[in-house]
Amino acid sequence: MITSVPLFLFQLAVVLFAAKLGGEICHRYLKQPTVLGELVMGMIIGPYALGGIPLPGIGPLFTPFMSTGAHSTPSNGNELYLIAQVAIILLLFSAGLGTDFRQFFRFAGPASIVALGGEVFSFAFAALVAVAFGLADHFLSPGALFIGAIVGSTSVSIAARVIRDMGKLGTPEGITILAADVIDDVMGILILTVVIGITTIGEFHAVDALLSLGKAVGFWLALTAAGILLAKYIVHFIISFRVAGSAMALALALALFSSGLAEEFGLATIVGAYAIGLALSNTELANILARPMDTLHHIFVPIFFVVMGMLVDFQAVWGVFLFGLAIVVVAIVGKIIGCGLPSLGIGFNWIGAARIGFGMVPRGEVSLIIAGIALTRGLIPSNMFGVAVMLVIFTAVITTVVLPWLFKKGGAGRRT
Amino acid sequence: MITSVPLFLFQLAVVLFAAKLGGEICHRYLKQPTVLGELVMGMIIGPYALGGIPLPGIGPLFTPFMSTGAHSTPSNGNELYLIAQVAIILLLFSAGLGTDFRQFFRFAGPASIVALGGEVFSFAFAALVAVAFGLADHFLSPGALFIGAIVGSTSVSIAARVIRDMGKLGTPEGITILAADVIDDVMGILILTVVIGITTIGEFHAVDALLSLGKAVGFWLALTAAGILLAKYIVHFIISFRVAGSAMALALALALFSSGLAEEFGLATIVGAYAIGLALSNTELANILARPMDTLHHIFVPIFFVVMGMLVDFQAVWGVFLFGLAIVVVAIVGKIIGCGLPSLGIGFNWIGAARIGFGMVPRGEVSLIIAGIALTRGLIPSNMFGVAVMLVIFTAVITTVVLPWLFKKGGAGRRT
Repeated sequence: MITSVPLFLFQLAVVLFAAKLGGEICHRYLKQPTVLGELVMGMIIGPYALGGIPLPGIGPLFTPFMSTGAHSTPSNGNELYLIAQVAIILLLFSAGLGTDFRQFFRFAGPASIVALGGEVFSFAFAALVAVAFGLADHFLSPGALFIGAIVGSTSVSIAARVIRDMGKLGTPEGITILAADVIDDVMGILILTVVIGITTIGEFHAVDALLSLGKAVGFWLALTAAGILLAKYIVHFIISFRVAGSAMALALALALFSSGLAEEFGLATIVGAYAIGLALSNTELANILARPMDTLHHIFVPIFFVVMGMLVDFQAVWGVFLFGLAIVVVAIVGKIIGCGLPSLGIGFNWIGAARIGFGMVPRGEVSLIIAGIALTRGLIPSNMFGVAVMLVIFTAVITTVVLPWLFKKGGAGRRT
Repeated sequence: MITSVPLFLFQLAVVLFAAKLGGEICHRYLKQPTVLGELVMGMIIGPYALGGIPLPGIGPLFTPFMSTGAHSTPSNGNELYLIAQVAIILLLFSAGLGTDFRQFFRFAGPASIVALGGEVFSFAFAALVAVAFGLADHFLSPGALFIGAIVGSTSVSIAARVIRDMGKLGTPEGITILAADVIDDVMGILILTVVIGITTIGEFHAVDALLSLGKAVGFWLALTAAGILLAKYIVHFIISFRVAGSAMALALALALFSSGLAEEFGLATIVGAYAIGLALSNTELANILARPMDTLHHIFVPIFFVVMGMLVDFQAVWGVFLFGLAIVVVAIVGKIIGCGLPSLGIGFNWIGAARIGFGMVPRGEVSLIIAGIALTRGLIPSNMFGVAVMLVIFTAVITTVVLPWLFKKGGAGRRT
């Protein structure tokens, strides 16, 4: 008989090992972002594949995570799920901390047009596909809204990784894509806030929706404002500690607290983590945290992606494979049209617009986070989660193949 | 209504904050080891004090950790307990990795006489006190053995910290104390292995005890030997990974796996963590891990000590306060006699012997780990855990007061 503690230790050991092995194979041999390897390894070791096979004397290493239909309450034994939650809080806190306010505001104008175009087109296309496939009653039902939100957001980490690998971070296209990505992240979180606000009351009723939307957005604004106003005092307090590791531990405590508070106010935890990270960016603390944050990031964030992969129920996904393909297609087309067309209007030529459009194609952590939230709240069927993972994998592969080719095709991307 | 995820996030945030605040107060104002502040903060925020007060809309932040009487299975909602388990695995893995084989063997002879003397006297005195107070039937009953093991072991981290703060690490007394501490650690873990082996069968029956002892020690030796034999290949495999953070994540996975395996074989998890750390010490990997291990250590290990403090049930401790005082006295006397007398025999004078005797007085993580294991297995009553915490706090305070005075009293510690 195996008991809880060793089982948990084995689970954590296997997840860590799988994360690094999958990441390494992707990075070294397939030249793909590590996140893909983590997702695929999660699928392989998950409860619907190898992890579900009973081991002698232990039983299955992993059992399916439960969705409760209400708030994201993991069932007994899902400590891994809680650790993944902490990992994603770490990721979004770090993303907030790392947001360069100056770069953000310099490119905010043109980039936000690009980002908004991509969001609107992808969101609308995906919600329409959901209705067309009979997976949502109408365009504004919770399912359609969540599917739209999943497809709408871009992945900063995957896009940044591919463009950095090509050495094109400094080109006008590179800067525009990254700035639009950052804005997209904020928009994705705002959209998530709005969608959760609307769906918390079950259906779309204008007044109630506006009220809960107002409450959610109000909390988000209040938390960000409080963070920015108090940043000086928070930083002063935290860096006054002399015991080793205090800055990171205290900042993490603050991020966890803000995340818990956000969830209490009907938002997603990550909204709180991102808001407090943003408030503390451009402070002395952000520099102090850079190195320990890096260490924690590389160890814990992969756990999130492996756990996301473990949520994929193959049989269920097979039943919605056509829908999944349709979603992937509109996700790509939505970004190319939604981001490419505005690019033509802000001084780029056709090749530049194509680069920006394809640069905005990859989906990643925000899509998975939104899908995970929708799944645990019972707002999308479990096979939809597999579609989200399919979306992340397909868009990442297409971007890593097409984008280098578009950049190699040469020529300036701006009209002269 | 609060749900599981935010409650867990609030708990973790409060524990991290309390750990660093307590550590800082101890370090900056009381000039005491940070671990004392972490323990006391745990007692203050724990379920038997502030943490047990119901908050509006949330209920109590912490509920008592359950002891199940069997293997250390935490009850539902005790994710914090599992995180503390991972933290202590990290600490012992790091202790194993940091063991300097060369220094260890150079001072092994005299230091092991000092360590053994301290272990034997403290163990025997404490077990006798347990019998005298009627808390154990006889000298070899599980309760007496565990109380002996709790009192027997010295704290490397507290002793090292105090001696380093005095700048006396290089003195013959300093080197002897640290080498004896390291040997004491190994002995503590061996004694724990033996005691668990014996108590797994409930009572002391010579043949069964020897069998389960043999199994436990055999596994320990096999794991250490396998680790040492395979170290070259393990290190080669781990450092071949190019993705950032892989070395630390893979090493951690290995430590968690070994720990789970140890628990499966009837040992404590930390025995596995220490053995695999020892096997990998003096390899290239130990250097690579030093920095990320430091980061993880400073953030997670304090969680263990706060959680240990949270286990203290004040009312229950009050009922055994006299017994606790008796334990503290024999713990001090045991080390002074057990370590001081042999020191006289290996070339130290009276002042040197007194320094070594007092230097071996502080108890710490190993005592708490043993007490925690005994508590979760139902082998000691819950009030005994409070006695262990009392022991750690009292011996640390006495050491930090008396030891600097003994060193200031001046004069060489060795006979010339």
